[in-house]
Amino acid sequence: MFETLPGFRDFPPEACSQRNHLFRVFRNVARAFDFREYDAPVLEPLDLYIEKSGPEIASQLFHFQDKGQREVALRPELTPTLARMVAARVNSLPKPIKWYNIGEHFRYERPQKGRGRSFYQFNADLLGENSVGADAELIALLCGIMQTLGLGENHFALRLSDRQTWLLFLDHLGIKPENRPAILDAIDKSERRKPEQTLNALETACPGHGEEILSSIDEIKKINNLDVLLEKLSSFGSEGQQRAKDWQELLNLLDGHQVAHFIKIDLSIVRGLAYYTGFVYEAFEASGEGRALAGGGRYDDLIKKLSGNIDLPAAGFAIGDMTLSDCLQKNGLLPTYVMAPDLFLICGSEQRMSGISLVAHARKAGFAVSHPLKESGFGKQFKDAGKSGARYALILGEEEEAEKKVKIKDLKSSGEMTVDQDKLIQELEKLEEEGGIGAPS
Amino acid sequence: MFETLPGFRDFPPEACSQRNHLFRVFRNVARAFDFREYDAPVLEPLDLYIEKSGPEIASQLFHFQDKGQREVALRPELTPTLARMVAARVNSLPKPIKWYNIGEHFRYERPQKGRGRSFYQFNADLLGENSVGADAELIALLCGIMQTLGLGENHFALRLSDRQTWLLFLDHLGIKPENRPAILDAIDKSERRKPEQTLNALETACPGHGEEILSSIDEIKKINNLDVLLEKLSSFGSEGQQRAKDWQELLNLLDGHQVAHFIKIDLSIVRGLAYYTGFVYEAFEASGEGRALAGGGRYDDLIKKLSGNIDLPAAGFAIGDMTLSDCLQKNGLLPTYVMAPDLFLICGSEQRMSGISLVAHARKAGFAVSHPLKESGFGKQFKDAGKSGARYALILGEEEEAEKKVKIKDLKSSGEMTVDQDKLIQELEKLEEEGGIGAPS
Repeated sequence: MFETLPGFRDFPPEACSQRNHLFRVFRNVARAFDFREYDAPVLEPLDLYIEKSGPEIASQLFHFQDKGQREVALRPELTPTLARMVAARVNSLPKPIKWYNIGEHFRYERPQKGRGRSFYQFNADLLGENSVGADAELIALLCGIMQTLGLGENHFALRLSDRQTWLLFLDHLGIKPENRPAILDAIDKSERRKPEQTLNALETACPGHGEEILSSIDEIKKINNLDVLLEKLSSFGSEGQQRAKDWQELLNLLDGHQVAHFIKIDLSIVRGLAYYTGFVYEAFEASGEGRALAGGGRYDDLIKKLSGNIDLPAAGFAIGDMTLSDCLQKNGLLPTYVMAPDLFLICGSEQRMSGISLVAHARKAGFAVSHPLKESGFGKQFKDAGKSGARYALILGEEEEAEKKVKIKDLKSSGEMTVDQDKLIQELEKLEEEGGIGAPS
Repeated sequence: MFETLPGFRDFPPEACSQRNHLFRVFRNVARAFDFREYDAPVLEPLDLYIEKSGPEIASQLFHFQDKGQREVALRPELTPTLARMVAARVNSLPKPIKWYNIGEHFRYERPQKGRGRSFYQFNADLLGENSVGADAELIALLCGIMQTLGLGENHFALRLSDRQTWLLFLDHLGIKPENRPAILDAIDKSERRKPEQTLNALETACPGHGEEILSSIDEIKKINNLDVLLEKLSSFGSEGQQRAKDWQELLNLLDGHQVAHFIKIDLSIVRGLAYYTGFVYEAFEASGEGRALAGGGRYDDLIKKLSGNIDLPAAGFAIGDMTLSDCLQKNGLLPTYVMAPDLFLICGSEQRMSGISLVAHARKAGFAVSHPLKESGFGKQFKDAGKSGARYALILGEEEEAEKKVKIKDLKSSGEMTVDQDKLIQELEKLEEEGGIGAPS
């Protein structure tokens, strides 16, 4: 009768537990890196996004006027919200600020593989520190999450590039500062366009020089070796020499973080968004196929732009849930959680109330327990216990109740033991330690 | 420069960790009751809510037309979505279906204490079972959550009522079936209205009988004793006698579940929504003040209405995060999480890379570790370690590095020990067992 809107997803229990597996890994690894979780509304003033990205962004948003005549939008990304929140309490926050969020985001686009109209993102940002140590910390966090999910260097690579390096190259090519944004935009789009289209874009930006710039750019994009890159940069004067040192330090730090084997220098990455100011990166499947699994970089001027006056260096990245889940699925790395109670109560009609008391005690002790919600015969109850997937049945008949005992039956091995009712929790805890309870298989 | 929309909340880390404390308790207790988590879009077709609640609901919603000319709404509640999801896969789901969700909901209303335009709800529903055992299971889950949050019978009470009992009373008063919904609506609103307004509403429903009905209703609302209630019901013929048995069984089951001490029979509760068909309840602070902390009941006809043809008995409840947080705060039951890393690295410039390797190892082992993101002197690093709130410093100077050792310094007691670098994780795990690490205080 009713259907989910196109591009939106339902999460019945199995899908929900797979999604929550990602969220759990995000949280655990972010905690190990001493990042703090924050959250914010999914609905924000539309102007927050227009201020950052220009009025054309509205065409990609779910936006509307609310009953109070406010122009509002479902958030397509979290950075403007982060800027708002940090700006509001910048003086009371110790630096560096290391925050993360796991939340839903929205964009109005044609739904396709790996891209929905609603999707979840893990966002991590590090503010108040402009040294490459901060970039290394973020890249190490990103790689740490991928590793914890089971992805190794045969599954994914992080393509590392740098906006400042590109600016130095463009300067060296004699391109004027005012033309650089258009050229960087053309480079970014060149991966998804025909060469003629890129040539047109370059020609429009620098009339008469399109071909020449295109061939230089193609050479630069091919650089994938640190020594070659450092040599080039060192030939660009003191600014180039400083940037060569930054590259060297970043890669040393990533080696210290034990993630250097995931890093590929790849100057074809410039990131579409105009606000990046330094190192930028995208994680892709090792095969190079498909959309980016994650992406981020340094954006030192954005907080000032969005907050009006707060100068705070910043860097961050986002991981989307859709491409990541597809990648994990393909590699058999999405766990199938066994959703079953630990225990299922089976009892006689006369023993029902005291059976439910045992259920209540076991639940308070943290065990997952189901029981028949209405009276039924032992045969039906055994069948229900089997269907529930419970490892153990708690059996309470006339005989057990008379002696204040209860039977614990292993529904897998059919082994059973009878224990005192008031020792039930201790016995269950012993079984738990032995791995019979609570261990998803 | 930009502000949060009115009625929406930001969750910087401390507020987020308090909210997550609620979510963690919801999840743990729901798991103990063998309920499965599901999730669904926050944006749904507007018709889903109009079908359930009538066209006037739109005035309380955030709704709009999307770029594909679909009328859509931010969900004000989850039941219609649940009906849609269950109806779509009803044949493949084993019964009873025990599902829960923790999610954001929206309504366009004047923001006030305990009521925002965005709020979180814990929703639990039990479908496919019409016996009172299902009602008892849900009420026990609700009380179990409150108890796990630290709320006892001096903090909250669950007011229990029954739509069927009301219908029997109204029948006994000679009120025709077609007038019952208007009368129940007047009873529901009577708690928040002046007596004259209630009288007017009753008079409109049954001209000439308003005063008489009002005085009967006032008598019925005063019943708070099971024996009195059972006696009344038993005088209403076989239907009344059956319902008396149901009441008796429900209260016995709640006794079995160890939550009977939270229950107050209170027929003034009828729940505003017309779709309830059986036992209904609301949890309030024990003082009786403030808005309901939670509410729910049985709605056996709703799935059929929303799915078109699927006849599935159902019951469920919701707990909102705002009144609950206020109540916990007032009672000093909202934990203040200490947000600090377990360890902070302090190292010499020459030892930086091997220090970061130790950080990487400790993080992989699950410890929360911070480190200086750029080079600085030992004094500054000790100061930063203190500010971070870390319990231990990992100190790696020239001397330690030469011997492949590292110093672990307790920043609280100033005690310290020097251990082999390759035994660091074992030593940290020992400290963890002793409670020095990872135990939020």
